[in-house]
Amino acid sequence: LVLLYNSQVSGNCYKVRLLLTHLGVPFETHELSVVDRSNRADVIGADANPALRVPTLILDDGRPLAESNAILWYFGRGTRFVPEDIYEQAQMLQWMFFEQYDHEPYVAVARFLRGWAPKTPENEALAESKMAGGNRALDAMERHLTGRTYLVADRLTLADISLYGYTHVAHEGGFELSARSAVRGWLDRVAAEPGHVAIDA
Amino acid sequence: LVLLYNSQVSGNCYKVRLLLTHLGVPFETHELSVVDRSNRADVIGADANPALRVPTLILDDGRPLAESNAILWYFGRGTRFVPEDIYEQAQMLQWMFFEQYDHEPYVAVARFLRGWAPKTPENEALAESKMAGGNRALDAMERHLTGRTYLVADRLTLADISLYGYTHVAHEGGFELSARSAVRGWLDRVAAEPGHVAIDA
Repeated sequence: LVLLYNSQVSGNCYKVRLLLTHLGVPFETHELSVVDRSNRADVIGADANPALRVPTLILDDGRPLAESNAILWYFGRGTRFVPEDIYEQAQMLQWMFFEQYDHEPYVAVARFLRGWAPKTPENEALAESKMAGGNRALDAMERHLTGRTYLVADRLTLADISLYGYTHVAHEGGFELSARSAVRGWLDRVAAEPGHVAIDA
Repeated sequence: LVLLYNSQVSGNCYKVRLLLTHLGVPFETHELSVVDRSNRADVIGADANPALRVPTLILDDGRPLAESNAILWYFGRGTRFVPEDIYEQAQMLQWMFFEQYDHEPYVAVARFLRGWAPKTPENEALAESKMAGGNRALDAMERHLTGRTYLVADRLTLADISLYGYTHVAHEGGFELSARSAVRGWLDRVAAEPGHVAIDA
């Protein structure tokens, strides 16, 4: 059985659970705290994941994989979630790299700071410093999704699963989606896909 | 001809030039400043790259691609730089996502702040704040490369091209590689590959 070092509240872990559920791949989870990370070197190990983050996944033969979007690739390639066309594949990866560089460091970090970190003035100031970057990323999505059903190839791909992870809980970081109707329509479409599962399921 | 919106000093652009040169894909460059970014919306356009960054690449049929590592994928898939095995492919992408999340935001940003940004106390303090993260990333590479020739599959892949980009100029950001002999040996191997080209070539 696939073992997922998991945090139930982490959008990065949720992406993996969402894809595995869509694909019907059975997995078990080992829950780790996103707040107390002191045991991670012992539990995960730097060989399995140099960054010691969740998600880290252990395949049934013991081989490890890290980085949420690389794990998505491992399970997604050859399924309906990855286009065969090389340009569409590159576009899909473009949005997944955008997610890790332009979206997650702002939207996910603000959400963590406001929802899970100690409530201090420093953490609130740090969260506030993430708003401009997060809003830029959400604006880029809004522009791109205007007139499109999904991010790439007019169907649900790994790019959507990746960006859905933290976008659908962006309000928990203080981000406002009400004026972003293309993003909201896209969130609804992703959630309405057969086989969808919620982050707290 | 492929058109590359380029900055000659950017490691992210260099990755793309290095792969295209290895593959013998002819391209022309349109040089943009990494300091004055005011014309980017007009030149690149948000449709081509929502993040308005270099590298942005325009294929000969006019279709755009962004994100250095997604561009590497587009040209690299099906060549010797991308393993066919799905686990090795996922490992390769794991290091490329590591590069964008754990390495570039520290090593590349410190290098930019110390080499190209205005020399102010604020910029120097910001550069200093990037050192711990950059050293963590370089330590992770040192551990992984100890006893290995390349990052994945014992041969030069996109993962090496991606991480070579900013690691080989990490000293320009104030990072010290002298005690990291596995990283230094790996840098030498990448540079000794037939078809290699320097960042300032």
